[in-house]
Amino acid sequence: MKHLLVTAVAAASLILPASAEEPAPIPSPGEIAAAAPAGDWVAIAPSDLLVMELAPDAKGKPRRVVIQLMPAPFSQGWIGNIRKLAAAHWWDGTSVNRVQDNYVAQWGDATEKKVLPADLVTVPEQDYTVPAGQLVIHETPVRGATPSPHKPRGDGYAEFTRFSGGWPVAYDHGREWPLHCYGAVGVGRNMSPDTGSGAELYAVIGHAPRHLDRNIAVVGRVISGIENLSSLPRGTGALGFYEDEKERVAIASIRIATELPSADQPKFEYLSTESDSFVRYADARENRRDPFFIKPAGGADICNIPVPVRPVAAK
Amino acid sequence: MKHLLVTAVAAASLILPASAEEPAPIPSPGEIAAAAPAGDWVAIAPSDLLVMELAPDAKGKPRRVVIQLMPAPFSQGWIGNIRKLAAAHWWDGTSVNRVQDNYVAQWGDATEKKVLPADLVTVPEQDYTVPAGQLVIHETPVRGATPSPHKPRGDGYAEFTRFSGGWPVAYDHGREWPLHCYGAVGVGRNMSPDTGSGAELYAVIGHAPRHLDRNIAVVGRVISGIENLSSLPRGTGALGFYEDEKERVAIASIRIATELPSADQPKFEYLSTESDSFVRYADARENRRDPFFIKPAGGADICNIPVPVRPVAAK
Repeated sequence: MKHLLVTAVAAASLILPASAEEPAPIPSPGEIAAAAPAGDWVAIAPSDLLVMELAPDAKGKPRRVVIQLMPAPFSQGWIGNIRKLAAAHWWDGTSVNRVQDNYVAQWGDATEKKVLPADLVTVPEQDYTVPAGQLVIHETPVRGATPSPHKPRGDGYAEFTRFSGGWPVAYDHGREWPLHCYGAVGVGRNMSPDTGSGAELYAVIGHAPRHLDRNIAVVGRVISGIENLSSLPRGTGALGFYEDEKERVAIASIRIATELPSADQPKFEYLSTESDSFVRYADARENRRDPFFIKPAGGADICNIPVPVRPVAAK
Repeated sequence: MKHLLVTAVAAASLILPASAEEPAPIPSPGEIAAAAPAGDWVAIAPSDLLVMELAPDAKGKPRRVVIQLMPAPFSQGWIGNIRKLAAAHWWDGTSVNRVQDNYVAQWGDATEKKVLPADLVTVPEQDYTVPAGQLVIHETPVRGATPSPHKPRGDGYAEFTRFSGGWPVAYDHGREWPLHCYGAVGVGRNMSPDTGSGAELYAVIGHAPRHLDRNIAVVGRVISGIENLSSLPRGTGALGFYEDEKERVAIASIRIATELPSADQPKFEYLSTESDSFVRYADARENRRDPFFIKPAGGADICNIPVPVRPVAAK
């Protein structure tokens, strides 16, 4: 049973090569992504990668988490602050202080006393969203992620959602915003109108908490090493905060990848959401026709269509 | 920032009491559930609880996982097999063999050689769903979870979804079925038409893989101790299988709660999905008006409206 269940899940996996055990007459989403031509993949600039090194685990294994920062026009004020905090090495010596099951892992200064760089900006709440029309329109909307007069399926949180520039976005009432899908990285904040500086960050490690959309800034997504956050012990304090400071997971450093030695810089690429390969991939996520499946769903919520991201193969 | 972020998340938490730090003029979903009258809570029969005891963790801490088995009419053939396997103590000495990030934790006999009880039944594929009309209609459909001619929101995987008898269910083309939400427990299977015996089980530990609905049997949900599965190290083999058998997590026992000494039997209750309290709770999940929030979403996907479940307070 194990090996055959593999077949089911291989199709759901974006990073792993498709199982060689039962060649699928109809390709799985993972197989479609793996077969996409090189030209359909978009390299992520090292200047857009935030690299967090946690203290090694109990066995001495390094724990690196790589975060892709969101491109303009989204959340740029907070991202500017994050770049300043990384350049100042501000997070070095801070820690992961909270892990709440099916919700978030959160890191920053547990003492809440560490002085912030003086040049951080205050970002207004309207920047949680941007005026519509600044983004490339996705030519091939995902059923269930765009409204259809014929078959209303859709998104519970917005008029519609779509992919743009490699990211899932939502539209409603003339505004667009990024989504709290699994792996999304957001900015912890105080009560409104405080929108947070960017010094306190969290990553989503459970079912997409989309109710946070438009209420907290989304600044990026974990593209590698999320298991180093999602498999941490859950905190036993209220909301998953670690009650004993010895439970906190030390952060050795957080850097923009360009600050690392070039040999140590992570290199990733994502499947262009404007590519035909992505259209086929998204359709396959909505309608599983690979051998394990019996009933194609006929749709999917956009957070269940993760954009394929992979390491760039060494030349 | 930490304490105030607590406010945001307390509202999203179902088990924890609401934060006492900033009394909310408008109650959060968690506060609404906590304030529900005793009569709105439904006790879960111990005969419907499957109790899995994993080997203690590295610090010797017990690791119990409590699973609520699904009531009729769903998945009863597989659940009958699961009751026989538990009665035979079949799982004792087996292990958790696979943990794939943002997907599932899976347990059973890693050797795939352990002889199954002779009286297990073979369940046909049509039993993944049931004919509509066997379930109580929820009087107050959740917006986004039921079709609306005025404001089409909805479900990407079905004509509509709703709550019935304490469980989220989907409807399409005259059939209804249970959902793969976070914590759902399903039956691993071989290639179709094999539907699995129930000996190989998995729990969802990531974003709802709803594409598995109607393709695999859902037999229950983890109602306590899911962190003992979701925080396990991810397997480094294909699809999260543990490559080294020493990585496997031993299962000491799996029992129906009625087989445990009464003092050791877990006691839980869920908030009736037919109660007014649940209607208010679900509305609050869709429209967060508690102080931290600025923009109520106006909807939610059904897997982001988890049915409140709590331990029964000792009398």
